[in-house]
Amino acid sequence: METALTQAAQSNSEIEFWFEFASTYSYLSVMRIEDAAARHGVTVIWKPFLLGPIFKSLGWDSSPFLQQKAKGEYMWQDMARQCRKYGLPWTRPTTFPRRALLPLRVALIGADTPWAGEYCRRVMSLNFAADRDIDSPEAVGDVLMQLGLPAAQLIDAAQAEPTKLRLREQTSTALDRGVFGAPTFFVRGEMFWGNDRLDDALTLAAQSNRQ
Amino acid sequence: METALTQAAQSNSEIEFWFEFASTYSYLSVMRIEDAAARHGVTVIWKPFLLGPIFKSLGWDSSPFLQQKAKGEYMWQDMARQCRKYGLPWTRPTTFPRRALLPLRVALIGADTPWAGEYCRRVMSLNFAADRDIDSPEAVGDVLMQLGLPAAQLIDAAQAEPTKLRLREQTSTALDRGVFGAPTFFVRGEMFWGNDRLDDALTLAAQSNRQ
Repeated sequence: METALTQAAQSNSEIEFWFEFASTYSYLSVMRIEDAAARHGVTVIWKPFLLGPIFKSLGWDSSPFLQQKAKGEYMWQDMARQCRKYGLPWTRPTTFPRRALLPLRVALIGADTPWAGEYCRRVMSLNFAADRDIDSPEAVGDVLMQLGLPAAQLIDAAQAEPTKLRLREQTSTALDRGVFGAPTFFVRGEMFWGNDRLDDALTLAAQSNRQ
Repeated sequence: METALTQAAQSNSEIEFWFEFASTYSYLSVMRIEDAAARHGVTVIWKPFLLGPIFKSLGWDSSPFLQQKAKGEYMWQDMARQCRKYGLPWTRPTTFPRRALLPLRVALIGADTPWAGEYCRRVMSLNFAADRDIDSPEAVGDVLMQLGLPAAQLIDAAQAEPTKLRLREQTSTALDRGVFGAPTFFVRGEMFWGNDRLDDALTLAAQSNRQ
């Protein structure tokens, strides 16, 4: 963390990281991005958003992994392999996709703070390693308290109307910018979709450091 | 080619490569797979199939890149970047997806021959580098003649009923095995989807060589 912050302070380049706690491939990127960005001297801008309205705009009731059975079955197999590859813990969640409204609203409040990364990793670990629901004040409160943060106060702020509105607006911005899934990265206006493009996106961001 | 064949003869492992000439990401894998497999001592089993019936089974009239506008726009940007990364020529085709029935039927006839790889690369280059239609006896005939093959005879065989039936059957097999897009790879029964998984699939295939 210390290293990440120090290097980030020296860098002039950023990666926008659009993610959803319900999204399996966002899990991979949430767990990897802060270390990987630090190695490239790149600052992570955390952009939580809601996938539901994105899928609705495509005429889908839910995740494409539920809409398309074969793709969904493959995804579980692929996620287990990818987690092995990256050395990440993995438990196939018994509920998918998990509702993540409250933890996303808290992520929005914390997006520009030093605790954003650790908070997001812990929420993701609850969902995809511990197989626990994440959309309750208890679950989110536990994570915040583990980080030594004022849990009750942050949860109250997350549930207040202005935060709800900001998350809806952030989701509209995602739609307007052409986001159609998660994770999605932007580097200097260029869009990269999927955990498989995280390295390419960071490489582009790091190039601007050297210019 | 010589190297690929020699190494393949020594190996005991295979990668099944399911592809479509209309598919952009199949272009990347068709151009890369034979060299990459040779480096791993792995034999490529060429499995041409039709994406159309796969998409129809999902209730779609055409490619997901046409069904989902934002995803389609992103794909063109991503393809240009991916081709730069792999050092492949790239022209965004003026028709997409291109009909590819005839070249796929010829690919099915040639799948187990030494000319499969070079034939497929030339058809793909017509589509995605030269921006030419590929579903005509003229286009396919040109490619076959460049390879010194009996073009008229192969095209007649491709247009005969047994070949048409075999391509339909191969496509049904793809559906039965859970294929939902292209390219798709199988190694020892494990499925890998997308050009982004080619290296993982080859790594798994190469591991069985060392056992």
